[in-house]
Order: sequence, then structure tokens, then C-alpha cells
Amino acid sequence: MVEKLFVVKIGGNVINDEESLRSFITDLVSIDEKVILVHGGGKIATEVGTRLGIQPQYHEGRRITDDQTIKLVTMVYGGYINKKIVTLISSEGKKAIGLTGADGNLLLAHRRPITDGIDYGWVGDIDEVNAELLSQNLENGLIPVIAPLTTDGEGQILNTNADTIASEIAGAMASAYEVHLLYCFEKNGVLEDVNNDDSVIPSIDEKSYSQLKASGAIHTGMLPKLTNSFHALSKGVSEVIIGHSNKLGSLTQTTYDKCTRISA
Amino acid sequence: MVEKLFVVKIGGNVINDEESLRSFITDLVSIDEKVILVHGGGKIATEVGTRLGIQPQYHEGRRITDDQTIKLVTMVYGGYINKKIVTLISSEGKKAIGLTGADGNLLLAHRRPITDGIDYGWVGDIDEVNAELLSQNLENGLIPVIAPLTTDGEGQILNTNADTIASEIAGAMASAYEVHLLYCFEKNGVLEDVNNDDSVIPSIDEKSYSQLKASGAIHTGMLPKLTNSFHALSKGVSEVIIGHSNKLGSLTQTTYDKCTRISA
Repeated sequence: MVEKLFVVKIGGNVINDEESLRSFITDLVSIDEKVILVHGGGKIATEVGTRLGIQPQYHEGRRITDDQTIKLVTMVYGGYINKKIVTLISSEGKKAIGLTGADGNLLLAHRRPITDGIDYGWVGDIDEVNAELLSQNLENGLIPVIAPLTTDGEGQILNTNADTIASEIAGAMASAYEVHLLYCFEKNGVLEDVNNDDSVIPSIDEKSYSQLKASGAIHTGMLPKLTNSFHALSKGVSEVIIGHSNKLGSLTQTTYDKCTRISA
Repeated sequence: MVEKLFVVKIGGNVINDEESLRSFITDLVSIDEKVILVHGGGKIATEVGTRLGIQPQYHEGRRITDDQTIKLVTMVYGGYINKKIVTLISSEGKKAIGLTGADGNLLLAHRRPITDGIDYGWVGDIDEVNAELLSQNLENGLIPVIAPLTTDGEGQILNTNADTIASEIAGAMASAYEVHLLYCFEKNGVLEDVNNDDSVIPSIDEKSYSQLKASGAIHTGMLPKLTNSFHALSKGVSEVIIGHSNKLGSLTQTTYDKCTRISA
């Protein structure tokens, strides 16, 4: 029988708040099955950057990563946030190993080419996941904790969206495990009405997604997450669950319905 | 036959200089035997700290690690420097995995108690090395690259001297490998005359060390390194070599004599 693996992604809303993060980690270590955690950035990068005189630049919600910014996020994502999560897991009695995409060439990427005149800077699009490295660590009883950084394999760290990393990792692990990808964020799931947290769409498949998209029912901010979800499913992931980060314990239960479950 | 393992420590003089670091990494990846690299801090922590408004505090050459400083060094040592080295090794065609003492509980430590009225802050003294984690990574063909950070296992990162970490790791690996501990720094070895780089003492053992210490022939700055060296030997390490960081390729050769070799 193929073993179950949860690939869990958390974003800034959890990382920014000490109490939320502790509570999330308590839920995480209670999961009996194998787990990989992918974390996002959070506002601490902006805070540290401001103190260092580095002004954040965005284009359509994506940070433009100049020379100073890639150093900043390597420090904050790969050092501060990643090791904070690793030590919290350890304090709860499990062992974690913090990784960036550079460690063991976990996530080989290429720098995004200039598109429509926009140079995103040191931003990477993933070409290859070293699934073996993750399997080895999982089999050794460790929870891999992955920072949103990749590498070009030629000495350069690159900045990569954490949702995308979670999707690529989930897809790469699907040949060896029954993979469930969990996107945990600050809402209960994909909402019909973005202002009503009870309007969760319980299940989406490719057909209903086309209809929802066509009718404009889905908030545009959700579209990249859904694209990443269907990408993971196309790679053999069993299911994608989008739900609230303070409900992780429930999200791993098949009967829980206050979330969005996505299937192919 | 027991396999040879080099535990190599580099300090700030290499890390601070881009060209020295690249050249050092080229030598490192040319070593045919198994290798673990332990790196120190370097002046970048002070530079970033100054820009963040964190003033370094020292007592007898050791940084006093307050709340702000432990966050700073976690970012700089565990994030920036560690991942820089990992990506450089990768660009030379080998795979490295960056670790702090928190990853997989690699280096469990306790906070140093207040001694003679001096509180070093978040500084850790090592209790336990997870040698199995290092062996697993070595057997998987990875070069472990270790930042000078430990953990108390209860959610706190601690700052620990890199020479001490190298000594403890070398000692812990000695039951499984024939371990050679290499301290690479900015001089050719232990010097009789600190101003004359040709006055290297080629070999030291416990007896000659007592005599050299009694006569005051050894510069006091070298004493902690020598204490760490004899500690490693007492744990079963075969040999400690102290030499110049730009001679790494030669230091691993048994016939090379422009360095100090220490035996029990």
C-alpha cells in the first residue's frame, strides 16, 4: 500500500503571529502520517528590509527581487523563519530539517526571463525537484521544512513563490506517496462571496472550475492558488485541500467539510 | 577498513573575501574523501547588525548574544553565509546540505550559565551531536555545511563557537570514520613567533604542548584552538591539522609540512 504524505503550505498570516504559529505547529506535529511543510515569507522580510534601507518593490503582487532583496530574503526566509519553525517543531518532540531549494539542489530553477518588459530580478521558475532528498529525510523520521528559495545550480539563489513550490513538490512526490496537498491560509477555503467566510465552495473539479471562472464567481486573488492546485493534480497528487490555517487538525480528516477540496 | 573523513573548519577571513571563498570551495570539492564543513561568522554579521542598529558586544573575544543578536546571527550565519557556501559548492558540481544545530537536533546544547558575573546571553555549550544525521547525509553523497548555531531542544537557537562545533562533530564522528580535523585560518599553523609565518611548529603532542604552554611560547589567541584540538583527539579523532585556508588542497596530503599537526 502506498503511504500517505501531506504537503502543507503556510503563509505569512501564520508566520507573522507568534501564537498562531505555535498553535499551527502543535497541530502539525500531531499528524500521524508523513509531512512536508513549505512556508512563505511574511512581513518580517519587509520589516527587516525597511530597517536595512531596502524598499520592497512589487509587480502584480509579486516582489521584484533585486540584488539587495535576494540577500535579504535568503537571510529572513532561509535563516530566521526557517530555523524558527524547525526549533518550534523540535520543542514539540519531533525532528525537522530546514531546507532551501539550494540544499542538495532540492529545487533547481532558472531565472524568469523578462516578460512584457518586466524584469522580476532574481526570481526562479522551477525545472526540477530532488524528490529523493525529501524521501530520504522522510524515511529518516524528519519533517522537511522548506523555505521559498530555489537555485540555478550555478551559484545563485532565486526567490520563488511558496504556493508554486508546494505544488511542484507535491507533484514530484506523487510517484512514491499518496500525496495530499494542503494550502492553509486565512480563510476557510475558496469562497463564493469573499466577504462571507461561510460561503465556502466545498468541492471543485476541472469542469466546475471552468464554470466558476467563466461566471467570475471566484476572487481573482485565488486564481494562482487554483492554477497551482490543478497543476499538482495533473502530476498525480490525489487531492488538494484549501482551508483555514487554524484548522489544520481537521483539514487532514477526510470527513471535514469546512474547506475546499479540489480533484481532477 | 574505516573510511577517512575530513572535518574542515573555516573562519571569517575566508568568508569575508569573495575570491578567497571561491578558491577555498574549489579546493574543498576536489577532496576525494568524505568531507564535513563547519563555517564561522565573519564580519558580515557585524555589518548587517550595524545597519539594523544592533551594536556588537564582546567579552574576552566572545560575542555576547542578546535577543536581537541571536536573531541577527540566525539570519546571517544560518541564512546568508550558509546558503552562499551551499550554492558555491553546487556550482562546482557537488551537492551540499546546509544545517544549523537546530536541524534534526544536530547539536543539542544548554545555555551557558552565568559565570563570574558574566551572562553571555544566548550562547550554547554542546551536550550532544546527532552523528547519525551527518552519516546519513554523507552516505547520500552530500557535503554537510554547518553554521555555528545550536539549539536547546526547547525552541531556542543558541550561538556557539565554530571551532568548538568542529571539535565536537569530529569527536562524535570518530566511532564511524577515521576523522582528520582541519582548522583552516589566516596563518600557516601554530607559530613560535606570531609575526613570522615561517616559524610554524610542525608537530605538537600533549607533552610538547605542556612545555610550550609553560614557556609562554604559544600566542594566547591560539590556546582555545589547541584546547579544542586535544578535546577532539581525546574523543578518538586521528589527527588535528592547523594550517592556512589557502592551502586546503595540500593540508589533506599526509606529506605536506607547512602546517601544524597535532596528535595525542
